[in-house]
Amino acid sequence: MAIVVQKYGGTSVANAEKIRRAARRVINALEKGYKVVVVASARGKQTDELVADAMELNPNPPAREMDQLLHTGEIQTVSLFAMTLQAMGRDAISFTGGQVQIITDNVHSKARIKSIGAERIRRELNRGKVVLVAGFQGIDEEGNVTTLGRGGSDTSAVALAAVLKAKQCEIYTDVDGVHTTDPRIFKDAVKMKQISYDEMLELASLGAGVMHSRAIEFGKKYDVAIHVRSSSKKIEGTLITHEVAQMEDLVVSGATLQENMAKITLVGVDNKPGNAAKIFSHLAQEKVVVNDIVQTEVSTEKANISFTIGAGDLRAAKRAVDKIKDKVHCESVFTREDIAEISVVGIGMRTHYGVADRLFSSLAKAKVNIDSITTSEIRISCIVDKAQGKKALITVCRAFDLDKPATKRKKTAK
Amino acid sequence: MAIVVQKYGGTSVANAEKIRRAARRVINALEKGYKVVVVASARGKQTDELVADAMELNPNPPAREMDQLLHTGEIQTVSLFAMTLQAMGRDAISFTGGQVQIITDNVHSKARIKSIGAERIRRELNRGKVVLVAGFQGIDEEGNVTTLGRGGSDTSAVALAAVLKAKQCEIYTDVDGVHTTDPRIFKDAVKMKQISYDEMLELASLGAGVMHSRAIEFGKKYDVAIHVRSSSKKIEGTLITHEVAQMEDLVVSGATLQENMAKITLVGVDNKPGNAAKIFSHLAQEKVVVNDIVQTEVSTEKANISFTIGAGDLRAAKRAVDKIKDKVHCESVFTREDIAEISVVGIGMRTHYGVADRLFSSLAKAKVNIDSITTSEIRISCIVDKAQGKKALITVCRAFDLDKPATKRKKTAK
Repeated sequence: MAIVVQKYGGTSVANAEKIRRAARRVINALEKGYKVVVVASARGKQTDELVADAMELNPNPPAREMDQLLHTGEIQTVSLFAMTLQAMGRDAISFTGGQVQIITDNVHSKARIKSIGAERIRRELNRGKVVLVAGFQGIDEEGNVTTLGRGGSDTSAVALAAVLKAKQCEIYTDVDGVHTTDPRIFKDAVKMKQISYDEMLELASLGAGVMHSRAIEFGKKYDVAIHVRSSSKKIEGTLITHEVAQMEDLVVSGATLQENMAKITLVGVDNKPGNAAKIFSHLAQEKVVVNDIVQTEVSTEKANISFTIGAGDLRAAKRAVDKIKDKVHCESVFTREDIAEISVVGIGMRTHYGVADRLFSSLAKAKVNIDSITTSEIRISCIVDKAQGKKALITVCRAFDLDKPATKRKKTAK
Repeated sequence: MAIVVQKYGGTSVANAEKIRRAARRVINALEKGYKVVVVASARGKQTDELVADAMELNPNPPAREMDQLLHTGEIQTVSLFAMTLQAMGRDAISFTGGQVQIITDNVHSKARIKSIGAERIRRELNRGKVVLVAGFQGIDEEGNVTTLGRGGSDTSAVALAAVLKAKQCEIYTDVDGVHTTDPRIFKDAVKMKQISYDEMLELASLGAGVMHSRAIEFGKKYDVAIHVRSSSKKIEGTLITHEVAQMEDLVVSGATLQENMAKITLVGVDNKPGNAAKIFSHLAQEKVVVNDIVQTEVSTEKANISFTIGAGDLRAAKRAVDKIKDKVHCESVFTREDIAEISVVGIGMRTHYGVADRLFSSLAKAKVNIDSITTSEIRISCIVDKAQGKKALITVCRAFDLDKPATKRKKTAK
């Protein structure tokens, strides 16, 4: 009998009625003959409330104790979920992360899973029970409680699906699936039927927040089919899976707009080996996450170095740059906060040409000025004026038919 | 360095300010040179709220899942408490029951402690940390979470004190200590300086709810000095300890009144061996807790059997009696709900005479009618009319000087 893992996020279990609805989905899967493992997050705003309780007592709470505190929210959900299934006549048993031996490293608040002992889960599944596992948590080798960081319940679910060789890992959420772009900006965005892990990873890193990167990486590494779908509607969502041939026919799968960005340019830095490394190690010391870097030679001695960051990191980034700018003989520093980044992602780019051309000419036709361009193997990003960001995204979506189902888009030359 | 265990009940950690106050008490003990282990209950109404959440989803929730759900409340308290101590500059670490290997049997919702692995606690104490342990909980041998039932955190604390050979187990609560009787009824009741385990056990079984019986039994068995004291005032409370000689000078230590009672009398039961056993095994099947039993022969063939129960058990008790009454040829059944029981407790009774006399004559002088009398080695109880219960208690308290400190009471002949 095949196993499915179902993961329910906090909004999908926020109250009694939602837990009952989720339980009915579990029963549906049982009736189709599956064994079901459920991973759940803390209910609604529970985690936020616990964080507030902690901050009141210690504005700088130690990570080990925060993990000990916060992991209780997920335990509450799975025990209540188990009771609900039992009230509906199904046998069910809930576990903490520690009880099913989800062993992690000891980096509290962002631990990584090292191993999962699935024996207890298998035994209970074989007894005909639904097994519920508290998401987001594990224990280290000393038995201390650890948590997996933002989006951690997704990672718990995908990791359990991997260990149990589940047929599928279903991620129930408050959106219908993964869309070609943000429907709040481009109302004609369509839901993708499927997407490759690599594309999903690019989209996640560009802020398309449906799933957390680490869960997707896990899915890719252990070949777990991940189905992102609505917890309130009975429609199919988006399957995140390995590349299949027809995915390559699609030159662009999705597009994103990031608005809360800033860009720093160091003008006239000495063009010497190691200077860039010095700058970015200073930024790392200030815990600034750098997105894209563009370095351009302006002469044999001098180069300009630009990079983009989240707007929230700007102050820390400036502090880092101020410390290093004289050592690399930087002539001046410019910062821009009035920027946005639009990106297109698609594994088809590897084999198709003309993608950049279509992108740039569509933006030119729409009179969108491009500040700079960065690319990866399956992504092209452009920095544009913030005021033109939404218009740029809509233009690009139309240019790549992101308002049409994948099968109906015009082909691009290979 | 000596160890003290401090236990804080739910009202003593109900909010941030109370947790800080409790943390300052811990620091006081550290400054006196003690190593400190803290056991805490769930904050304020947290447990009640979780029970309500469960009932909404399953009116008859399975005990294993209830334990899994409810044990989170205590974990939240100890992690928040640890953060508070750290904010005050003291190193602290919190543990679940399972993390410090509080191993119980697998009787969910009323488990009994089988063993405690104190190594981890000792190690952390020796590193100079305050160790906080979530009360009320343990794990069974399979790793399932269990809870210890009502008053379970007291039991956790006393058991930890026993294993760690602590100098004292301090129970912080919202009363000043153990009083000679309920001050809400007899306003001149005085706080006892000390009381023996056996007396405290009698008082606890008579509903004087300061501490739960099992914790006291544990203390007696493992010789743990238990200090019941106020969490808000800095005064000494009551020490529960082994008997010492001067305790015997006191003929009566305390008095109680139980008002929510009922009495059932089976009249004219066949006076044959095994008939009483049949009646009480039927009551046990209905889960009725029987307090006192009085059997009186009315002839060589017939006896009357009376017993008292909590008023809440009356319906179940009647059901049980209805099933058995014909088999024991019972002639008629009477029930009374308009009764109350007053009791006096004191280990001095073992060696003093005249206690019963003083009790009965004081009640007679006050024109309180006695329905029936039961005694144990250190207790005398009288059933009286409910309407006379409070008057009876006050009369008895005056008769035995329970409004005076122990040293100032009049002696009784030995």
